[in-house]
Amino acid sequence: SGEQAWEIVDRISSFKFQVSSFSAPAVKHAQITDGQAIIDDVVLTWFKGPNSYTGEDVVEISCHGGRYAANRILALLVENGARHAKPGEFTERAFLNGKLDLAQAEAVAGLIHARTVKAGQAAARQLQGGLSEKVRAMRNKLLDLLALLELELDFSEEDIEFESRQHRLETLNLLTGQLNELIGTFRRGRLVREGLRVALVGAPNAGKSTLLNAILQEDRAIVSPEPGTTRDVVEARVELDGIEVILQDTAGLRKSDHHIESQGITRTRKTIELADLVLLLVDESNPLLPDETILNLLGSKSVIFVQNKLDLRQKSQEIAINRPKITFFREIELSALTHEGVDRLNQALIEFLSSEDTAQAEIVVSEARHHDCLTAAAASIQRAATQLAEPTLMASDLRDAVNHLGEITGESVGESILDRIFSKFCIGK
Amino acid sequence: SGEQAWEIVDRISSFKFQVSSFSAPAVKHAQITDGQAIIDDVVLTWFKGPNSYTGEDVVEISCHGGRYAANRILALLVENGARHAKPGEFTERAFLNGKLDLAQAEAVAGLIHARTVKAGQAAARQLQGGLSEKVRAMRNKLLDLLALLELELDFSEEDIEFESRQHRLETLNLLTGQLNELIGTFRRGRLVREGLRVALVGAPNAGKSTLLNAILQEDRAIVSPEPGTTRDVVEARVELDGIEVILQDTAGLRKSDHHIESQGITRTRKTIELADLVLLLVDESNPLLPDETILNLLGSKSVIFVQNKLDLRQKSQEIAINRPKITFFREIELSALTHEGVDRLNQALIEFLSSEDTAQAEIVVSEARHHDCLTAAAASIQRAATQLAEPTLMASDLRDAVNHLGEITGESVGESILDRIFSKFCIGK
Repeated sequence: SGEQAWEIVDRISSFKFQVSSFSAPAVKHAQITDGQAIIDDVVLTWFKGPNSYTGEDVVEISCHGGRYAANRILALLVENGARHAKPGEFTERAFLNGKLDLAQAEAVAGLIHARTVKAGQAAARQLQGGLSEKVRAMRNKLLDLLALLELELDFSEEDIEFESRQHRLETLNLLTGQLNELIGTFRRGRLVREGLRVALVGAPNAGKSTLLNAILQEDRAIVSPEPGTTRDVVEARVELDGIEVILQDTAGLRKSDHHIESQGITRTRKTIELADLVLLLVDESNPLLPDETILNLLGSKSVIFVQNKLDLRQKSQEIAINRPKITFFREIELSALTHEGVDRLNQALIEFLSSEDTAQAEIVVSEARHHDCLTAAAASIQRAATQLAEPTLMASDLRDAVNHLGEITGESVGESILDRIFSKFCIGK
Repeated sequence: SGEQAWEIVDRISSFKFQVSSFSAPAVKHAQITDGQAIIDDVVLTWFKGPNSYTGEDVVEISCHGGRYAANRILALLVENGARHAKPGEFTERAFLNGKLDLAQAEAVAGLIHARTVKAGQAAARQLQGGLSEKVRAMRNKLLDLLALLELELDFSEEDIEFESRQHRLETLNLLTGQLNELIGTFRRGRLVREGLRVALVGAPNAGKSTLLNAILQEDRAIVSPEPGTTRDVVEARVELDGIEVILQDTAGLRKSDHHIESQGITRTRKTIELADLVLLLVDESNPLLPDETILNLLGSKSVIFVQNKLDLRQKSQEIAINRPKITFFREIELSALTHEGVDRLNQALIEFLSSEDTAQAEIVVSEARHHDCLTAAAASIQRAATQLAEPTLMASDLRDAVNHLGEITGESVGESILDRIFSKFCIGK
């Protein structure tokens, strides 16, 4: 992408776009050559700015897949004066050239990283400008308010009131309500975007890996009759009800000064801290609980208690498990080995997801950055509402709110924020 | 790809190619929609057969990356009457429509799977038709020979000789020479295509994982002071001298009836059997050798003897290691920990590669299938050369040779061979 794009590709391709009578957009089969040998047969597509993704002249080279052809062609392009794009640079240029606003640009990354239907739908709506429109409408209302307020300040000696304080307060309350509604969607938005993190916790040999496999219905973790087999945290992802569930198996939790085991325990602790939900697994045929220090971590967590190895239970056998003093979201008996009861666990996970999924809004905030800007804007408006008698102070608060909202769509945003946003993109986007 | 391609895409896209005045090939920005919501912003490219990859009408949809958009769009296409391509089906159609011959079609797969410069170059040459041309020239020469021979058979009662036996023998010898030259390139071709498999073998705690990391110059395998850490075979790939080297760490080899360990030993044995080269590692500070049953496997292998933990050696210390009775390709002292001597090992690997790399030919046979066809053709010609006095038998052998060569380029090839070839492709190719 850029002024020299066509020229550079002409140097390495058998078809010369610039000397032919083609007009962009155009597509043609050609060979890429390094002057000595043909590297690959490709399809070239030429776009003429501003009618391209970046708004600049662009050539796309569709080569054969795999590592060799793409790498050789990239190297050739660089030898001929191109340079590698920085992460997100194509989308950043699209933003700077006015092809997308900032929230739309972020939606591109959201769409690419979406692993579930709901995450994809949310990103596609954001890409079409749904969130931007809502934010821009609120910002425009604030700008109207501010314009009248500043006019009033200009005429302050004449004591003219262009708008009643009551009317101003109503507008601010209305905006606060709209902002809070959007902010309220973020809990769901984060879940839709990042998935639900579930930690599998239990004493060694409680059957954590077997349960993980049962949920996955495939052999992902190594299962072995020997306690302490899982040394690293094994992660697996399943989609439940359109939302990604990230299951994290943890090391068996026994006290140990054994080098690797204690590394494992540190990781387990961290996994629990980051989890949205914990599955506490107990082998009912040998009901050991994890270490006390680990149980203490569960107090502040949503926990499903899972009584495993139902398959080993004798008929009408009394099972007495010394339960930890934790309030459980659900209690489930199952056999990870025979899969009996695993569907009940899946159901409980879906119920937990719905319990988290309170907002039913069409437009959902899923970026932490947007959430922070909206929260800051709401706080500025809250402050402005207490300054109705002080137009100068109120105007300053309203300007803050305008800027916070402008940061979402990119009307008011510094270079460092842009850098931070686009550096999170993958290369080539 | 296919007759309905344009029509099906029109049903889900905001831009309708069939009702517009566009002519293919053409490219346009459009939205894909499921009738209710926009799924993604895409670029559509229309090709009109025979000017497309498959030779049929084709539409390419370039959507945003990641999982969501592509999956939704594929599902929509299927709902609208398309079906998923079978592995290699695009290339198979290209072959059936005469856009590529069979060896070129196979080169597409080779190019995609090429992980190194040399593998890519070889595949690109094959894609341009280098091998096909050579094979076709030999086949044509055989057909000429056969034509005269069959003419002679028609006139057999009149005892006319259209070509001297001496001349025929010379032609057959020439062809045998050319065939053997091509067949001889396969050893190198296989290496270029599939890489060099190197097994790291040694007693527990000899430092195999540390050496693997040293060669990789990154932390890929877990390194731990406790013996027996590596339970699975850890594989890593590096490129040396344009060729891929596949390093396979193996489980520490001690006698064990311990469940997981003995699984590890079975895998280790298998790894050694498949390896082109073995690195036998010994910790010189504690020079244990692997189990006898494993050492016995090394007799038929190329082995580099690596004396590790040079860093622990005292100045002027005598090192006495009870070496196994194996002829080593090289013997190297190094410290995997400090990296001292690791460059000597890399050098030895490169030397081993060159020792395997005897053919310097431009056209290299890298497919086992081609190798087998060439070998069969050479055998048929060999047989024909012994039948100079029996034109009927000779003609039959020559026809066999013609068919074997035709199997390479696809002139004479059955459906089952085609299925086998194209099913090895990835989907979408």
